[in-house]
Amino acid sequence: MYSNITLDTVAALKQICGDDQVFTDLDQLAHYGHDETEDLQFNPAVVVRPADANQVASIMRLANAEHIPVTPRGAGTGLSGGALPVHGGILLSTERFNKIIEIDERNLQATVEPGVINQVFRDAVEAKGLFYPPDPASRGSCFLGGNLAENAGGPRAVKYGTTKDYILNCEVVLPNGEIIWTGANVLKNSTGYNLTQLLIGSEGTLGIVTKIVFRLIPLPTKNLIMLVPFYSPEKACEAVSAVFRAGFTPSAMEFMERDAIDYVMQFVDVKIPVKNEHKAHLLIEVDGNDIDVLFKECEQITELMYQFECDEVMFADTAEQKNELWKMRRAAGEAVKSHSVYKEEDTVVPRAELPRLLKGVKEIGAKYGFRSVCYGHAGDGNLHVNIIKDTMSDEDWKNKVPLGIREIFHLCVELKGTISGEHGIGYVQKGYMDIAFNSTQIELQKGIKRLFDPNNILNPGKMFV
Amino acid sequence: MYSNITLDTVAALKQICGDDQVFTDLDQLAHYGHDETEDLQFNPAVVVRPADANQVASIMRLANAEHIPVTPRGAGTGLSGGALPVHGGILLSTERFNKIIEIDERNLQATVEPGVINQVFRDAVEAKGLFYPPDPASRGSCFLGGNLAENAGGPRAVKYGTTKDYILNCEVVLPNGEIIWTGANVLKNSTGYNLTQLLIGSEGTLGIVTKIVFRLIPLPTKNLIMLVPFYSPEKACEAVSAVFRAGFTPSAMEFMERDAIDYVMQFVDVKIPVKNEHKAHLLIEVDGNDIDVLFKECEQITELMYQFECDEVMFADTAEQKNELWKMRRAAGEAVKSHSVYKEEDTVVPRAELPRLLKGVKEIGAKYGFRSVCYGHAGDGNLHVNIIKDTMSDEDWKNKVPLGIREIFHLCVELKGTISGEHGIGYVQKGYMDIAFNSTQIELQKGIKRLFDPNNILNPGKMFV
Repeated sequence: MYSNITLDTVAALKQICGDDQVFTDLDQLAHYGHDETEDLQFNPAVVVRPADANQVASIMRLANAEHIPVTPRGAGTGLSGGALPVHGGILLSTERFNKIIEIDERNLQATVEPGVINQVFRDAVEAKGLFYPPDPASRGSCFLGGNLAENAGGPRAVKYGTTKDYILNCEVVLPNGEIIWTGANVLKNSTGYNLTQLLIGSEGTLGIVTKIVFRLIPLPTKNLIMLVPFYSPEKACEAVSAVFRAGFTPSAMEFMERDAIDYVMQFVDVKIPVKNEHKAHLLIEVDGNDIDVLFKECEQITELMYQFECDEVMFADTAEQKNELWKMRRAAGEAVKSHSVYKEEDTVVPRAELPRLLKGVKEIGAKYGFRSVCYGHAGDGNLHVNIIKDTMSDEDWKNKVPLGIREIFHLCVELKGTISGEHGIGYVQKGYMDIAFNSTQIELQKGIKRLFDPNNILNPGKMFV
Repeated sequence: MYSNITLDTVAALKQICGDDQVFTDLDQLAHYGHDETEDLQFNPAVVVRPADANQVASIMRLANAEHIPVTPRGAGTGLSGGALPVHGGILLSTERFNKIIEIDERNLQATVEPGVINQVFRDAVEAKGLFYPPDPASRGSCFLGGNLAENAGGPRAVKYGTTKDYILNCEVVLPNGEIIWTGANVLKNSTGYNLTQLLIGSEGTLGIVTKIVFRLIPLPTKNLIMLVPFYSPEKACEAVSAVFRAGFTPSAMEFMERDAIDYVMQFVDVKIPVKNEHKAHLLIEVDGNDIDVLFKECEQITELMYQFECDEVMFADTAEQKNELWKMRRAAGEAVKSHSVYKEEDTVVPRAELPRLLKGVKEIGAKYGFRSVCYGHAGDGNLHVNIIKDTMSDEDWKNKVPLGIREIFHLCVELKGTISGEHGIGYVQKGYMDIAFNSTQIELQKGIKRLFDPNNILNPGKMFV
């Protein structure tokens, strides 16, 4: 179906990017052949690290003419296999796109290359009193381009929105090598179809983003964090929607099942006073600029929590205590994964349906014989369901678990939710797209893909079966 | 190019929607043949008022098979001619889609038909302590479906975002009569391409929306408003960006040139103490739940304003005073339009470029011999430029003014802005799309249109020349 990479192709790539930016040795191929998704490995035939949009355009023209698959890759922190070169070919790394081009303080905007690390960017804008809210758990290593590709969220999305809410415009190299901007650097835009939002979350299948214009907001200067232990996970989930119905919009509202906390405490050095009878925790953060207002909010939220049979609410008001709580929450993913082979499902439902989702996940697990550890962004109805292999047979893992996952996703859709809240579909979830969409919806999306990439050379094998 | 409406077509439409919902008399055709855009009139051949998505689907199947143009229409309050049936054919009115299907207080969501009036919806959710922020000037009469089609904004967009930021999902009848949902009822979604955002702002050219799922937020309970008179319009514009740079996010930040205020005071009964030397005003609103915090914010913003050579800041803290100020601001459009034939341009630039835009508009007006009255959502960099015909010759109005408009739009794009912030392209701005987009960008958009509507029967003659 696709052409093989020849010595001529490699020579042409070296011509475009320089001899030292093209790799074919096995070590490098293996390094770029996996991301953070399960234990999957697909080596590319060649790795290339272009320096600018023109080099990307030249690579795409070459690949398009010769019918070679190109898989773009950021930091490789993805959880749906979006950066895996499943058809081999060219792996295009964006790691040299690492410049913050401009932080425009007059307009509260920034123009950035896609290979800048999320945390590096947030630190740079915070130094100027500005705030870039989207903060996925991998923020210390993930690239902003990957965040765009998957429409990444994170804990602050509940108050501030996801990556899509902060991107005004981007420069994109299309599969045929043409370079366009998707929009304009404005806060309001009713000019033509929204190509910017079409690119965001398109998982590198429609174009390769080479510049991003973000909007920024003023940095909130104060915050307070509470940890609330519950005797029942369902009650914890019920409490979540009560907070929003009461008129509060916390800057984080995170849920952790007891198992997740236990894994974390084995994995990192944090000490949370957990009693045997605690079955779940909510981590709640409020932010703003007036500490008295925040204390008042915390008091009112605390009162509300006690209506849902929680144990004593713990306050963190020193920087150290706050860091400790966030360290615990952020380590959940890695802690669970360090324990066993796993599959992570990124379920999302309307917030008030969380208790039903959680209950359903456990029932489905019991039916198919798997254990799950759940945690996630409860304020957004976004529950990460980690299915743990433990001692399950390879046979059951391969055949029974996907049936259980299908049932979980059917439940999400029944509850008016969907199958990915922030991780994307990529390679590992594409077999479930028929649960979220009927054939008309899928054909429309495939039509968009064909329009942008008629030869299907850009990140093939993703999103659609 | 298109088929004519025959007696058989009319009979078929009556079969679908009922005899009393299909109109061919001249009075009705004339009524549905114009909107609020200039003095344009294009009568359809027939008007049909379907009651539900299935009827819309039947109409689309008929029109698609017989190659008849269909123009969807909400309340007809549009300012870019989006609802004008410029190719005749069928005018499809959504006025019977007037039900608020559900206000889901548990999830802070609402499911609504597109023919619900914006103000009716906001009142209904406010009665439950919830807030739907987008509030275009026409909110008392415009439909939510039209707001979706144009991605409507309004004064509160500066803090709360535009229509696109409140739509989670919609039911859409495609041009071939198939009915799909574009997404899911969730706050975060990384599942497939963002069809929801593709439909929003597509001006009724890709599908006819028949249900909308909105997200809602808690209703802020307090607000304060200030009116700030400036001796120079440019200084007023400079002050705008200073407010945001200082870390404030007002819930409205409106600019009015002196001429706009004078027109308003002739048009509606509001009394604003304006001195001769006042050349522009900013209307600034802050909102929240703690009145002390708001008073403090107002004080700090006031101090900032005095750095930009303003006269004494006027506070409105009674409901009556606040209403008076908003009445003034909201009447600006109609007041200016009542005075003369006009063209309204919906320019938008990054906020800090407003002074340059305003200066440029006036210079371009002087060059081409036209007068403009400017007002708008300064916090978003969205300036409505009303070009007044007054005593200008028809010849100059027809030939010279469009050259001036082109120059204004070129300036917007040079300043990293674009040609419509919230009114859409529709019929009257499509000739300027080449200023905002190059041929690659236009062809991609036309490709999307062809994908959804290969026979070009849905709202043809809009957005693209």
